[in-house]
Amino acid sequence: MVPHLITALTGPINELEQRVLDSMPAIERWFRLEWMEHTPPFYCSVDIRNAGFKLAPVDTNLFPGGWDHLTPEMLPLAVQAAMAAVEKICPEARNLLLIPENIDPANAGRNTFYLSNIAQLQRIFHMTGLNVRIGSISPSIKKNTTIPLPGGESITLEPVVRSKTRLGLKDFDPCTILLNNDLSAGIPGILEDIHEQYLLPPLHAGWSLRRKSRHFKSYEEVAKRLGKLLGIDPWLITPMHEQCEGVAFSDTNTDSGLECLSSNVDTLLTRIRRKYKEYGIKEKPFVVVKADNGTDGKGIMTVRDTKDLQVLNERARAKLLAQKDIPSMIIQEGVLTHERMHDAVAEPVVYMMDRYVVGGFYRIHAERGEDENLNAPGASYVPLAFDQSTQLPQPGAKPGASVPNRFYMYGVVARLGLLASSYELEATDPEAEVYA
Amino acid sequence: MVPHLITALTGPINELEQRVLDSMPAIERWFRLEWMEHTPPFYCSVDIRNAGFKLAPVDTNLFPGGWDHLTPEMLPLAVQAAMAAVEKICPEARNLLLIPENIDPANAGRNTFYLSNIAQLQRIFHMTGLNVRIGSISPSIKKNTTIPLPGGESITLEPVVRSKTRLGLKDFDPCTILLNNDLSAGIPGILEDIHEQYLLPPLHAGWSLRRKSRHFKSYEEVAKRLGKLLGIDPWLITPMHEQCEGVAFSDTNTDSGLECLSSNVDTLLTRIRRKYKEYGIKEKPFVVVKADNGTDGKGIMTVRDTKDLQVLNERARAKLLAQKDIPSMIIQEGVLTHERMHDAVAEPVVYMMDRYVVGGFYRIHAERGEDENLNAPGASYVPLAFDQSTQLPQPGAKPGASVPNRFYMYGVVARLGLLASSYELEATDPEAEVYA
Repeated sequence: MVPHLITALTGPINELEQRVLDSMPAIERWFRLEWMEHTPPFYCSVDIRNAGFKLAPVDTNLFPGGWDHLTPEMLPLAVQAAMAAVEKICPEARNLLLIPENIDPANAGRNTFYLSNIAQLQRIFHMTGLNVRIGSISPSIKKNTTIPLPGGESITLEPVVRSKTRLGLKDFDPCTILLNNDLSAGIPGILEDIHEQYLLPPLHAGWSLRRKSRHFKSYEEVAKRLGKLLGIDPWLITPMHEQCEGVAFSDTNTDSGLECLSSNVDTLLTRIRRKYKEYGIKEKPFVVVKADNGTDGKGIMTVRDTKDLQVLNERARAKLLAQKDIPSMIIQEGVLTHERMHDAVAEPVVYMMDRYVVGGFYRIHAERGEDENLNAPGASYVPLAFDQSTQLPQPGAKPGASVPNRFYMYGVVARLGLLASSYELEATDPEAEVYA
Repeated sequence: MVPHLITALTGPINELEQRVLDSMPAIERWFRLEWMEHTPPFYCSVDIRNAGFKLAPVDTNLFPGGWDHLTPEMLPLAVQAAMAAVEKICPEARNLLLIPENIDPANAGRNTFYLSNIAQLQRIFHMTGLNVRIGSISPSIKKNTTIPLPGGESITLEPVVRSKTRLGLKDFDPCTILLNNDLSAGIPGILEDIHEQYLLPPLHAGWSLRRKSRHFKSYEEVAKRLGKLLGIDPWLITPMHEQCEGVAFSDTNTDSGLECLSSNVDTLLTRIRRKYKEYGIKEKPFVVVKADNGTDGKGIMTVRDTKDLQVLNERARAKLLAQKDIPSMIIQEGVLTHERMHDAVAEPVVYMMDRYVVGGFYRIHAERGEDENLNAPGASYVPLAFDQSTQLPQPGAKPGASVPNRFYMYGVVARLGLLASSYELEATDPEAEVYA
């Protein structure tokens, strides 16, 4: 059941698709060899934008939510991939502890969407043959708390129990602890110094330490190599970026860091303009300015001109101010999304478990433009038949005419984001020195 | 799309299903740990019979055909599992050589069913990112031969080229050689002494060396251990068997080996009778006598009484005589199949790649009885939604009421057959002594 999508764009994207398809054996071999040297993140989702003339990931999430948007048809792939992941990490495992975002039980009703995602993850790992329980690190969860979910299910959050060396629940000692909490608020002490158990993703994948600019630096590196393999300009699959350290907005005009921002926005717009000229692209270049950490889409600005920064939209400024601690900002090449569904702007989101693409969906937003962030209130989700698609290209089909071929290309770009995350986490591993 | 099946049998099988489901984490962990010590066969299919009071594999095929009966929905699972298999064996692989059964090009039209299976395997491995070509070891294939298949596809058989140490095609040097030729006719010299490439399954998995009795000896071993884990009598998942060496039938009454056969049929019928009595089963016990090697279902006899052997059906005797070289016979406990579809007797066949269940179908035969072999001319195949099922049990469902739970149980028994094959191949490896 593939919904009606304008995936069959004309122009360079079809050439890219053809190139990707023709190089399938080389691409798959390259990934296989990469995964021999580098460990994939346990799970990952990648937001992709298809501008018609280029295709690029704009966000790589190492604590993906939204698993509940995967269809039942995608579940077997997720389970099989999860089996492979578990086997590699802790084959003797009986128990898995899943740690969700902190939920205030008084407001649980507001979080049923998120908790449906947790219930789906619980289901997937249960099906791999693990006992899965949900341990909350929220101070407000003091006893087992069962929260009803839409659809008749329910989920039980249990307070975690920490011993000197291990984390678990009452009468539940897990081999692996899976975080679905992106640690935006910092690393809680209760998760520190756990060395006997597998804590995944590692703490430095959390947003208190992770930086988008570091991720996209790794992405540029791997995209360059894949570009070489495909014989394409890596820009066709890469969002360019710049970064500014220590930006702080205030309500006065003495904004520290604004100078860097202004200068780098200008630099990036110039770089994009040059590329657009090279490819004869008539669109107006734009950049997206956002916090270098965090994932929730707050305070994201679309900037078409450095002048925009001077007359910063009051609301965006207020949102930025609301974020206490912005250590740095990333300025990312804006990538239009030309995909539409029912007249709403759409962007594909690809889900991976271990090294495998297991599913995906389109995030659509009726009230947003093609140059705006769609991960915002009002977004909805349309599952895609990624399960039949990303791994099942149709050789010989006309470029742009085959949905499976289009999705195979999305899967390749998503896996490139996955690989970049692997490089990123290696480079930022605080314990790496120990082995160096 | 699950076809209407009488899977919801009453009696012990539902208790078994419940036990299997309750023990899911223990079962999965057990398999994970087993696969750390033992290498699964590259691919495998297992024929299963559900008698209502017991569930047992009756045949384990290490060169499975019939991949074309898997539905498009099952393909992504097969591709993902194949990726895992390839990565383990030869991650740097670019090329895979697939060797089918020997086809006489003059009679290719008769083999289009089999060749559709080869085309499907080619598709699966192409989708893992390998260049896949089909190399025939048949002397009658002297040049590239393209054979049209039903549905508009075609397949090209190429003559293999053997150098001193490697096997390939003209301008095609594979890392891995995948056999879909069960070597019933013996091991051809052209496949011997290949040590630089991966030849899978290994030559001793072929029917010229493999023995069913050896397989079921390994099966008994692993079923005993799983039975202990589940707290059940392993007989509930095991077909008992006896074996006779050097049986030769002639048209005289001086049949050598008939004495052993007669005695062992009697012994096995007695053992079955005892079990039936223990469980209060009212069915009439029977055994199946077949060649200890080979897979094609020729000369299979259903025997209810030793007297049957004396008055051996002339046709069965003629068929047995037609087989030149019967080194030994296996006498297997007959397992009824109580599954029906459209009034035809049905038995599930489960397909595995590496350690994963990737699909399956029901083999049905309208003209055969519930105590007869269904793998015979006239059989047809109904794909099952195994992809949604074997890995997706529904905890809490009433035993016998949930198709996914029933298929999960089938998948467990099939994987037990897979594991038994792994033990069997280790025990019969002619090169094992080298490392001992």
